[in-house]
Amino acid sequence: MAIPIELRLAVEDLYSEYSAALDEGRYEDWAALFTEDCLYRIVPRDNHDRGLPLAIMHCESRAMLEDRVTAIRETSFYAPRMLRHIVSFIRAESAENGTIAGQANYLVLQTLAEQPTTLFNAGRYLDIILRDEKKLRFKQRLCIFDSIVVPNSLIIPI
Amino acid sequence: MAIPIELRLAVEDLYSEYSAALDEGRYEDWAALFTEDCLYRIVPRDNHDRGLPLAIMHCESRAMLEDRVTAIRETSFYAPRMLRHIVSFIRAESAENGTIAGQANYLVLQTLAEQPTTLFNAGRYLDIILRDEKKLRFKQRLCIFDSIVVPNSLIIPI
Amino acid sequence: MAIPIELRLAVEDLYSEYSAALDEGRYEDWAALFTEDCLYRIVPRDNHDRGLPLAIMHCESRAMLEDRVTAIRETSFYAPRMLRHIVSFIRAESAENGTIAGQANYLVLQTLAEQPTTLFNAGRYLDIILRDEKKLRFKQRLCIFDSIVVPNSLIIPI
Repeated sequence: MAIPIELRLAVEDLYSEYSAALDEGRYEDWAALFTEDCLYRIVPRDNHDRGLPLAIMHCESRAMLEDRVTAIRETSFYAPRMLRHIVSFIRAESAENGTIAGQANYLVLQTLAEQPTTLFNAGRYLDIILRDEKKLRFKQRLCIFDSIVVPNSLIIPI
Repeated sequence: MAIPIELRLAVEDLYSEYSAALDEGRYEDWAALFTEDCLYRIVPRDNHDRGLPLAIMHCESRAMLEDRVTAIRETSFYAPRMLRHIVSFIRAESAENGTIAGQANYLVLQTLAEQPTTLFNAGRYLDIILRDEKKLRFKQRLCIFDSIVVPNSLIIPI
Repeated sequence: MAIPIELRLAVEDLYSEYSAALDEGRYEDWAALFTEDCLYRIVPRDNHDRGLPLAIMHCESRAMLEDRVTAIRETSFYAPRMLRHIVSFIRAESAENGTIAGQANYLVLQTLAEQPTTLFNAGRYLDIILRDEKKLRFKQRLCIFDSIVVPNSLIIPI
């Protein structure tokens, strides 16, 4: 079911804040966009379509997302990099229990230090969004990526 | 002339459904987004600008689009691939005879089986959109792409 | 502070016209989107973050932008090329003195004659937008790009 324009724009703002938090390295802000009992997964499309359980990243709560953030902050064994999100076709519909079903196409670009910007990962977000004290949060975000060639250094969430 | 916000959002939804149909391999749904007497063309920008007739794909009716879909479904002489559309700057204005003139910038990514995602084709959509029983449909979609280097395997529409 | 929907759409239209002017080679139209006392800069992200002054392009007035356009028109010492802008997450907020603070993620694709389309430059726009006789114009546009690998032929603005 279609949702009111204001809510549609609020969903766009949530997606925007999500990407800005990752692109600007504000990982704590990124984790704060999820509900406490959230599900966050990065899955190759093939596996998603066949219902296979393999995921490149799998977090079942906001606490796990926060652990991931700590790992990023404290691990120095990876080359500095920055992401840039380009997202298209954000769609939002009313779903069951007052949630919003969202999806979008995404392209994530990556720039390693002193390297040119490259195409890093592309696919589709599949989301369940909850209104939590007037704020929208992700109860679920699945990042379903197109290529089974797994990025060899997926450190920052997508 | 500018159009009402609701109609602007409806045009965005049409573009969204168009891309989703192709990205998800729902080619019959893609063909259903066109009017029966539609024009669909994929043309290099140079040829379009000079008014030259050459097109990489040229369909003058929905029946021809459906033939194209059948060809995709029944041809097994091409490697499995998936597309991902990233579209930006969807613009819509009132045009003559109650139609809507639409345009947008597009980037189509392609992923071949067991290959990384690559930049496949980029350019501009140039559209005439019709309201048909409260539904929007393409009466014309021109895909005007930037590089004259023709994709050597343009099987799925763009 | 959030801005009304109509103004939000007007900002999107400004971004859209900006990109279309560059993508279609209408450089005079591009310069006309700035205020007379504008600031336009293309800066590597690292330098921007550290407050370093280096810029790949730096113009302090619309007159300087127009000089740049003249230079593009009259210089024949570069290979013909075209750009294609893909922009995402256009955000707009009320700022001081009645201006609008805008930002967006951008990806610019480039196509040289008889070459495939390539990823040229990606980053973030950081803008101050002014209402000038009911029209929106850029008082400031900073193009902050991600890779310090400087494009070796940045001729057309981004």
